[in-house]
Amino acid sequence: MRPISAYFPILDWGRSYDRSTLVSDLVAAVIVTIMLIPQSLAYALLAGLPAQVGLYASIAPLIAYAIFGTSRTLAVGPVAVISLMTATAASQVAAQGSAEYVAAALILALLSGLILTGMGILRLGFLANLLSHPVVSGFITASGIIIALSQLKHILGIRASGETLPEMLRTLAENVGAVNPLTLVVGVTSLAFLFWVRKGLKPLLLRAGLKPRNADLLAKTGPVFAVAVAIIAVVAFNLDQRGVAVVGAIPTGLPPLTVPLLDVGLWQSLLVPAVLISVIGFVESVSVAQTLAAKRRQRIDPDQELIGLGTSNLGAAFTGGYPVTGGFARSVVNFDAGAETPAAGAYTAMGIAAAALFLTPLLFYLPIAVLAATIIVAVLSLVHFDQFREIWRYSKSDFAAMAGTVFVTLLMGVEAGVITGVGVSLALYLWRASRPHAAIVGLVPGTEHFRNVLRHKVQTEPGVITLRVDEGLTFINARWLEEKVLELVAADPSLRHFILMCSAVNEIDASALESLEAINHRLGDAGVEFHLSEVKGPVMDRLERSDLLKQLTGRVFLSQYEAFRQLAGN
Amino acid sequence: MRPISAYFPILDWGRSYDRSTLVSDLVAAVIVTIMLIPQSLAYALLAGLPAQVGLYASIAPLIAYAIFGTSRTLAVGPVAVISLMTATAASQVAAQGSAEYVAAALILALLSGLILTGMGILRLGFLANLLSHPVVSGFITASGIIIALSQLKHILGIRASGETLPEMLRTLAENVGAVNPLTLVVGVTSLAFLFWVRKGLKPLLLRAGLKPRNADLLAKTGPVFAVAVAIIAVVAFNLDQRGVAVVGAIPTGLPPLTVPLLDVGLWQSLLVPAVLISVIGFVESVSVAQTLAAKRRQRIDPDQELIGLGTSNLGAAFTGGYPVTGGFARSVVNFDAGAETPAAGAYTAMGIAAAALFLTPLLFYLPIAVLAATIIVAVLSLVHFDQFREIWRYSKSDFAAMAGTVFVTLLMGVEAGVITGVGVSLALYLWRASRPHAAIVGLVPGTEHFRNVLRHKVQTEPGVITLRVDEGLTFINARWLEEKVLELVAADPSLRHFILMCSAVNEIDASALESLEAINHRLGDAGVEFHLSEVKGPVMDRLERSDLLKQLTGRVFLSQYEAFRQLAGN
Repeated sequence: MRPISAYFPILDWGRSYDRSTLVSDLVAAVIVTIMLIPQSLAYALLAGLPAQVGLYASIAPLIAYAIFGTSRTLAVGPVAVISLMTATAASQVAAQGSAEYVAAALILALLSGLILTGMGILRLGFLANLLSHPVVSGFITASGIIIALSQLKHILGIRASGETLPEMLRTLAENVGAVNPLTLVVGVTSLAFLFWVRKGLKPLLLRAGLKPRNADLLAKTGPVFAVAVAIIAVVAFNLDQRGVAVVGAIPTGLPPLTVPLLDVGLWQSLLVPAVLISVIGFVESVSVAQTLAAKRRQRIDPDQELIGLGTSNLGAAFTGGYPVTGGFARSVVNFDAGAETPAAGAYTAMGIAAAALFLTPLLFYLPIAVLAATIIVAVLSLVHFDQFREIWRYSKSDFAAMAGTVFVTLLMGVEAGVITGVGVSLALYLWRASRPHAAIVGLVPGTEHFRNVLRHKVQTEPGVITLRVDEGLTFINARWLEEKVLELVAADPSLRHFILMCSAVNEIDASALESLEAINHRLGDAGVEFHLSEVKGPVMDRLERSDLLKQLTGRVFLSQYEAFRQLAGN
Repeated sequence: MRPISAYFPILDWGRSYDRSTLVSDLVAAVIVTIMLIPQSLAYALLAGLPAQVGLYASIAPLIAYAIFGTSRTLAVGPVAVISLMTATAASQVAAQGSAEYVAAALILALLSGLILTGMGILRLGFLANLLSHPVVSGFITASGIIIALSQLKHILGIRASGETLPEMLRTLAENVGAVNPLTLVVGVTSLAFLFWVRKGLKPLLLRAGLKPRNADLLAKTGPVFAVAVAIIAVVAFNLDQRGVAVVGAIPTGLPPLTVPLLDVGLWQSLLVPAVLISVIGFVESVSVAQTLAAKRRQRIDPDQELIGLGTSNLGAAFTGGYPVTGGFARSVVNFDAGAETPAAGAYTAMGIAAAALFLTPLLFYLPIAVLAATIIVAVLSLVHFDQFREIWRYSKSDFAAMAGTVFVTLLMGVEAGVITGVGVSLALYLWRASRPHAAIVGLVPGTEHFRNVLRHKVQTEPGVITLRVDEGLTFINARWLEEKVLELVAADPSLRHFILMCSAVNEIDASALESLEAINHRLGDAGVEFHLSEVKGPVMDRLERSDLLKQLTGRVFLSQYEAFRQLAGN
C-alpha cells in the first residue's frame, strides 16, 4: 500500500517552502497569467464554448494540480488539441451555443477527471503506452491542421463548419465570397505580428540589451500586445459596427459552482470521447512534465500525475470549466520564468481569477479574428512534416501507423484518428511479438559457444536440432512456438533429439507451459525426445511447480554444451 | 505472393490418392457418420434450430474443408460451444422457432465464413494469439457447465430458459414441480447408459477379445445404440403420447440452397458475435488439428486452416446450415479409425446426406431427452476443474484471467466471457511487457563479464551506471525506459556516465528511438553523458539512419568491457 501522504505531493515540497521560493513562483505566475488570458479565451472559443469558460478552466484546475501534481513546473489549463476534441464530442450530443452543449463539456471534464483519477489510484498509467510516439505525433500534426483550418473562418470573417478536412474545405470554399475585408485586415495583421513576435522580436530585444532569458519571456507575452492594440483599434474605428466580430459581453465574477448533469444516456454517449480526451491529455502532459523535470534532475510519478490531472478535471467540472491538461508552451514559459514549485500554478489561478473579476469589461471589443490568429500561430508550431521523412526512413511499420492516424484524423475526425492509431500500433506490435526472434544454433568449433547456423560456421549433429528463442514464452508467441517446432520436426525425418535453448527466456506463462507440454507429447508421439537447456533460475523454479518436467521425454541440461555433447551420436 | 495452388491443399494430397487410401478413408467415414448423426441433431437443438439443420451443417461444410483444409484428419461440423454461441447470438435478434432465428443462424455462418476466409487471405492467423490458453480453457469449462445445465430441462421434461447460470437455476427451480416422470426415466437411463459406455464398455469389449483400437471405436458409437433403443421404446410404449417429447417430423431430402438475408442492420448486430464464434472456433479447431497432425509428423498451415474453416462456414451458409468448426471427439475418432486424407470428410458428408434422404422418418420418435443426454455426456468431458489448481499453482496472473473468464461467462453469458478473457489477458500481457526485465550490472572481477549487481559480487565505478535491458525496446516499454533512466539519474547526484547495455535488444522502434533521443537530451541537460554498448548489428544499421548517433552526448562501444574500462575514472 502507498502511504496516504504519497497522494499529496504538496506535503513534500510545502515543507521547505520559503521566501525566496515564493518570490520565484510569483514572478513566474505573473508572466504565465499574462500569457494565459488570451490563450484561455481563444481555446474556449475553439471548443465552441463561451469565452469565460476558458478563464474558469484556468482557476480551480490549477489549484487542484498544485495540491496533487508531481511536476514542479507543469502549467495546467485549456489546450488546443483537447479543446478540439471537446468540440467534436460535445457537438455530437448538442448544438453549439446551447445550454446542453455547455453541460456536455462539464460532463466530459467530470468523466475525464474520474477516469484519470481512477487510473491513477489503480496505477494503470502503463495503459498510456498503447499510444506509440509516431501515433501521437501524427495525431497532433493532423489535429493542428484541423484546428488551424477551423480558425480560418474567423480570419476571413465568414461562416464555415465541419470536423474533417474535406468538410472544412468545402464549407470554406462555399462561403469564401462573403469575406469581410476589415476582419481580414485585422486577422492577417495579427497573424503577421504574431509570427514576427515568434521569429523577429527576440533578436531585436537581444540587440536592445536584454538578457536572452528575459528576451524570450517578453517575446512570449506578444499576444497580449496584439490583444491590447486590437481592442484599441476596434474602439477607435468602430470596427465592431463594420462587420468585425468581437468577443462581446463576458460575465464578470468568479467561476460559478456547477454540478454536472446526471443523465445516464448522455454519460454513456460521452464515455468513449472522455476516455480518448483523458489518454491524449495524459500522454501529452506527462511528456512535457518529464522533459522539464529532467532538466533539473527532478522526478515525476506518472501514476500520481494521473491523480493530479484527474483532480484538475474534477475541479473544472464543478466550477464551470471544461477538460484541461498540461500545456507545452505555457509550461516552458513557467519553467523559464523560474517557477520552483506547483504553488506558481496556484498564484496563476489567482491572477486569472483577478482577470475574471476586473478585466472582462475591457475584453468586450476584442476581435475574434485576433484570438483565431493566436490559435493558428500556436498550433502551427505543433505541425511537423519533417518527422514523416524521418520515420519513413527509420521504420516502415511505424510510418504505417503514423500515416494511418494522420489520414483517418484528417478524413474522419479526431476520435476515429486516435482509435485507428492505437489499433494499428497494437496490431503491428502483436504481430511482431507473435514472431519472436529465434535461431537454430550450432557449436562454434573449439569453443563451448553456440551461434546461429545461418550466420556462422558452426558444427551440428545429424538427428539433433537446437532452437534458441530470444524472448519470454507467453500466450502471444506460444502458438508460433508450437508451429515452429512442428515445422522443424516435420522437415527432418531423421530427427531424434530436439533441444530448446532457453538462455534468453525470462518467462514462461501458463499458455506457453501448455504449448511446451503439447510439444513434448507430440514429439513423443513422433519418436523425438524433447530437451531443455540453460533454463534460468526463476523460470526453472516455476517449471518445478508444473507437470512438464515429470512428463518430459528428454532432459533438462544446465548448459547447452553439455546437452550437445551428451546427445550427439546417441 | 503465395502460388494459387497453395490455396487448394487437395491438389497436393489428391495426386497420390490410391485404392488403399480410399479403403482407409471409407472405413473412417462410416464410423464418423454413425457417430455424427445423433450429434448433429443434438447440437442443432442446442443451437435452438430444427434438427435437420444439424444434418445440413454436416454435408457441404465437410466437402469444402476436404478441398481447402490442411489437416488430414480434422472432422468438421456442428460442435457444442459454437452451437451455444449461435443460440446466444441468434436469440438476441429473433425468437427461437421463428424463421428470422434460422435466418440469423445463416447470417452468422456467412459472416463467420467471410471473417475466417478474409483473415486467412490476409494471413492474420496470429490474431488468434489474443486468446491465451487459460482463457480458452476457462471459457470452455464455463460453457460446458452452461450447456449441461441448458439440457437439464429436457431430461426433466420441464420448461426453463436463460443464458446465464443464475437465470437457468432460477427458471429450473421455478418449474421443477412439473417434472414428467416418464421423460425423467428415459433421460436418466440414457445418461447412465452413456456414462457407462464411456467408462465401462471398453474394458468389457477388451475382455470379449477385441483389439484396444476396435474396442475404443465401438465404444464411441454408443450413442447410436441409445438412440435406437429409445426409438423402439417410444414406439412400443407410446411414450410420445404420455408426455415424452420427441424430435418429430424431420423433412426428408438433401439440404436446400439458401441465400442469407441481406439485411444491413441484422448483419451489424451479428458482427461481434460472428467474430467471437470465428475466433473461438478457429482456436479450438487448430489445436485439435495440430495435435493429430503431430502424431503422424504432418503439418498444418494455420493461415490456410482459416480458409478451410471459412469456406466450410460459407458452405453452411448457402445450404441451410449454421456455424461449424473442427470437433475434438469426432476428429480423434476419424484419426483412430484410420482416415488418411480429408477425402474421409467428403465421404462422411455423403453418409450424412444418405441419412438426410432415408433415415429421417425413423428419427420421428427419437426422444429429445436422449439427445440432451448425449450432449451432457459430451460436454462434461470438456469441464476440467483440476486445471484451476494447476494454473493457480503455476501463475497467479494467468489464474486471474481464467477465473475472470469463468465467472463472467457463467454470470453474464458467453460473449461477455470471451471479451473479458481477451481483455484481461491482453492487459496483463501489456502490463508485463511495459516493465521489461532489466538490471544494473557490474564487472565480475577477473573477467570481461557483467552481471546483475543485486545477485553477484561485482565491481562498479562511482559516477558510472550500466543498465542492461533484456527485451527489444518498443513503444510498449519506451516510457518505462525513460522513467527508469531518469529515476536512476535523479537518485545519484554524482553520476557522469550512463551506459545502456543493448546485448539483448533485438529491436528499437521509432517510439523507443524518440525515447532514447529524449533520454540523451535530458541527461545532457543534467550533465550526464549517455553511452550505448553491445548494440547488435541489425539494430545498429537502423540507428545509423536516425539522428540519435549524431546527437549522442556519449559514445557507442562495441563491448561493455571496453565502455567500462574507458569511462571508469574519467
